Amino acid sequence: MHGWSGKILDIDLSSGSVETRPLDMEIARQFLGGRGLGARLLWDLVGPEVEPLSPENVLIFTTGPITASASQTSNRFNVSSKSPLTGTILHANSGGWWGMQFKRTGYDVLIVRGRAEKPSLIEITPDGVKIEDAGHLWGKGVFETTELLGQNRNKRNVMCIGPAGENLVRIAAIMNDGERALARGGPGAVMGSKNLKAIVVAGKEKNQPADKDQFKFMQYETGKLLKASPLTSQALPEFGTAVVMNVINEIGALPTRNFQQSQFEHADKISGEAITEEILVKNQACWACPITCTRISKTASGKEGEGPEFESAWAFGAQCGIDDLDLITEANFLCNDMGLDTISMGNTIGCAMELAERGLLDSDLRFGQAETLHDLIQDTAYRQGLGNELAEGSVRLAAKHGAPEIAMAVKGLELPAYDPRGMQGQGLVYATSNRGACHETGNMLGPEVLALPRLIDRFATQGKAGIVSVHQNSAAVIDSLVYCKFANMAVAEEFFARTLTAVTGEPYTADDLMKVGERVWNLERLYNLREGFTKEDDTLPDRLLNDPVVAGPSKGFTVNLAPMLVEYYQFRGWDENGVPKPEKL
Amino acid sequence: MHGWSGKILDIDLSSGSVETRPLDMEIARQFLGGRGLGARLLWDLVGPEVEPLSPENVLIFTTGPITASASQTSNRFNVSSKSPLTGTILHANSGGWWGMQFKRTGYDVLIVRGRAEKPSLIEITPDGVKIEDAGHLWGKGVFETTELLGQNRNKRNVMCIGPAGENLVRIAAIMNDGERALARGGPGAVMGSKNLKAIVVAGKEKNQPADKDQFKFMQYETGKLLKASPLTSQALPEFGTAVVMNVINEIGALPTRNFQQSQFEHADKISGEAITEEILVKNQACWACPITCTRISKTASGKEGEGPEFESAWAFGAQCGIDDLDLITEANFLCNDMGLDTISMGNTIGCAMELAERGLLDSDLRFGQAETLHDLIQDTAYRQGLGNELAEGSVRLAAKHGAPEIAMAVKGLELPAYDPRGMQGQGLVYATSNRGACHETGNMLGPEVLALPRLIDRFATQGKAGIVSVHQNSAAVIDSLVYCKFANMAVAEEFFARTLTAVTGEPYTADDLMKVGERVWNLERLYNLREGFTKEDDTLPDRLLNDPVVAGPSKGFTVNLAPMLVEYYQFRGWDENGVPKPEKL
Ligand code: SF4
Ligand code: SF4
Repeated sequence: MHGWSGKILDIDLSSGSVETRPLDMEIARQFLGGRGLGARLLWDLVGPEVEPLSPENVLIFTTGPITASASQTSNRFNVSSKSPLTGTILHANSGGWWGMQFKRTGYDVLIVRGRAEKPSLIEITPDGVKIEDAGHLWGKGVFETTELLGQNRNKRNVMCIGPAGENLVRIAAIMNDGERALARGGPGAVMGSKNLKAIVVAGKEKNQPADKDQFKFMQYETGKLLKASPLTSQALPEFGTAVVMNVINEIGALPTRNFQQSQFEHADKISGEAITEEILVKNQACWACPITCTRISKTASGKEGEGPEFESAWAFGAQCGIDDLDLITEANFLCNDMGLDTISMGNTIGCAMELAERGLLDSDLRFGQAETLHDLIQDTAYRQGLGNELAEGSVRLAAKHGAPEIAMAVKGLELPAYDPRGMQGQGLVYATSNRGACHETGNMLGPEVLALPRLIDRFATQGKAGIVSVHQNSAAVIDSLVYCKFANMAVAEEFFARTLTAVTGEPYTADDLMKVGERVWNLERLYNLREGFTKEDDTLPDRLLNDPVVAGPSKGFTVNLAPMLVEYYQFRGWDENGVPKPEKL
Repeated sequence: MHGWSGKILDIDLSSGSVETRPLDMEIARQFLGGRGLGARLLWDLVGPEVEPLSPENVLIFTTGPITASASQTSNRFNVSSKSPLTGTILHANSGGWWGMQFKRTGYDVLIVRGRAEKPSLIEITPDGVKIEDAGHLWGKGVFETTELLGQNRNKRNVMCIGPAGENLVRIAAIMNDGERALARGGPGAVMGSKNLKAIVVAGKEKNQPADKDQFKFMQYETGKLLKASPLTSQALPEFGTAVVMNVINEIGALPTRNFQQSQFEHADKISGEAITEEILVKNQACWACPITCTRISKTASGKEGEGPEFESAWAFGAQCGIDDLDLITEANFLCNDMGLDTISMGNTIGCAMELAERGLLDSDLRFGQAETLHDLIQDTAYRQGLGNELAEGSVRLAAKHGAPEIAMAVKGLELPAYDPRGMQGQGLVYATSNRGACHETGNMLGPEVLALPRLIDRFATQGKAGIVSVHQNSAAVIDSLVYCKFANMAVAEEFFARTLTAVTGEPYTADDLMKVGERVWNLERLYNLREGFTKEDDTLPDRLLNDPVVAGPSKGFTVNLAPMLVEYYQFRGWDENGVPKPEKL
């Protein structure tokens, strides 16, 4: 195959049917793969009448045309579905090995429909596709499941859910290769609702570039850029993604204690520097990636595993007022084993802490209680006690206790580690992201903080909408190819276009790619509109709009969202209600 | 010295006085050097009462804190003055060796005031500063003058004017190192009006970095980025700046025959590829630059020299409907020898060609007449015949013949080689540039065409103002440090900030730099407002606003300037008349 195999594997767990269908190549060219292709297929398969946790919802696993080509970071894959947490379109992507291995089985896409009668697993190997009993694995953690199913880095890869997914926890992740997560929006719960414990893949097909010389040349060019950028060649390998912890804290944009403050007095203790100094065993990489941002860590008590990433260190750290790096790291490990989204988990715990401190939740829980993390996470996965409430996410939790404004979420998805009062453009990203508050669909960290490529005033709002839209479209492209966003911090779309051309043999320009990005964004928007979302949902928690930051470099700021939104709809060619105009479709 | 020597050399040619004054370091920190420092000093020295060609106008030559440090491209310098072509603030910068050498004389700034009684030259060497008779050089071309004065690449460098400057041609350049130009806005005429033929410099001071290790590290980091970018490591060395000719033509943004079309049917014959294939002898670099974008060319008739750059190849090529690369190249050489701005010269010839074709100018001149270039240029420099009209620039020429709308200029400065109907953001850059139509003060080539770092729709207008402003501020910083803009295509401001920190020993962040950029921009704006310019001058030639492109990829487009301007004033924090609000000052 050159780029696409042209095949969809379509499995209905209710009937047990396994079908191979052709991929509509017209659609593939328009949406490439990954997130874009997933959104396009979901559009046809899952309408507003479908309950996210019903058998009618589907899981669509998509690779992209460059997946498994060995182009740098060509390891990632995507899952699309309707989210049980938010009701919006769900897309999530993950690195590691599984995506590459699935592509090697000779399919571009795996659709899973229906609901198995009993716990099951899917195995896709050169010997065929099997649906098998997984009764012996049900209830087991991700680590054990992954091992029992024969995880073998380059040969056989396991994706599964943990207890959280089985118990339909709305913030449950799907885990692949043991410790990588399709995290946000609750895909693990969808998988659990299908009684599907795991999907194991082993393949031997190759994604051969159509033009080998040009492909090699582009690997060389890309490699040079990755080596030249201090971010991808030094900061990320040395300190991991948490390298930005101190930076974000210093500028007063590190949400602290459920966004009550925007600086954490112990940020240095949970920073990338601290991780490297205190718990790092070694760094590691996903398949075909020279960046090696992954941390392998070991805590004082001897627990070893992957993490913590910046977002996880923040979620259990600053967000909960906790500075105990060991316990934060173990919380991360536990989430991986239970199959939970660390951002939503930590954010929701922070929400519970504030509810309790305010006397709205009957609990002794307080900010800073590192020792509570373990049980809260475990109880969430098993839906025990307070955990049963946390399992519903911050929005349902806060609403239940009469304080909906305390949930730090947009469209139901918990906010990540940037306080938008100190990064106005990021606020617009959160408010408009189709899957809910998200930093991965248009992150403004580059222009608003790192001065990459050019610094723009992070407090300004005028003129931000255009930049945000371009970043969103760009992220949609990267997620559709599928590349890793960290590579994109050193390598521009132009290079991805040339690599895509070499792989597929079809000419692609950066312009073509950016048009795909816009197309994907508009389609996702339409999906949400069809689900009943309106412009009223393009908003932020009250706290960010109305409570000025109390101290630090962002002191006095709220997010000035309204004028940015007006500009944003205009820039996108949407009407004043945020509905794409006919000529945009 | 670390960055700044702290000394201004102040010469009054009327009185013959030579003074050394301290540089106000508060101002140096606020405006850095180069263009910013020049603007700040000009603000105090030259008010609205001063005629540009009177002795009261001044020439302010400025270096920047990194000049001569040996950081990559740290060779450039700037001249500031009031423009005899436009009446606006004039700033122009140039590479080569002179700037580095002047810095080595131990001064940051050279101010030249007054008017010498007879043709003179200034010599600045370790033996002191001399004003000498230049009667024997008056009337001589730049090449001969430069040689006679002992040009010696790394040791002794000559800057001078040619006949054009002597004859107060309003589009005359100042030439340094023989073939590099302080080109735009007529600085050569100001120098001529002072009876100043040349400034010769030889120095031995060093710009020593305060932190040598960090400086070396930043050289290494910068070098890696320059090598990793195909633009700075491949395209520019191999094909020179004209590498973009075919690209710009293909997208329908190459102004042709005085902007009557936006594609030139023979663009390939004047492209960087054609230059390399047909006339290139070798490539060369300015001091301390690994990029080597300079072309040394030789025509069929055996003439050899520097050029042509993209802009020059366009100005005598597509703009005049000419595809004879040899004659275009020789026109470029002749401009260098006469001391003329190739952009304004070629653009003005194109204007004359259109006037003649329309019967508004009594002449046989027609588009495509390559053989007319030589005499037209020479006649301009000597103000003979039609040349005496061309010497006034396109605006005065077209007005004189009753068709002001045919002058392709903004605020009196001729447009460069991008048709903004195919690049809307570039249109806003042209309309708002403080020195008049200019691609060097916020070029949108990166985002609108090359997809660096992210492609934005070149036809869109919504949201462009923010991006344009950021690019303008960034360009103002680069021009104030002074770095070469080509380096900035691979190296972000963040790196320049770190190098600046290493050189000066004072901490600079990218944020500090961008604030300098905004400060410089606003000060230039205020300068023009003080001169009587208003928002009515923030416009484009009628043709670009009202005549849709007739064919090609930009067919049907005009520049939709009005809404971009509204956004632009808002983004910049100016009032609706384009006047910076008090809090911006
Ligand atoms: S940069 Fe990190 S997350 Fe991305 S592919 Fe490489 S190792 Fe994986
Ligand atoms: S890139 Fe070209 S113009 Fe710039 S400093 Fe280098 S040789 Fe000179």
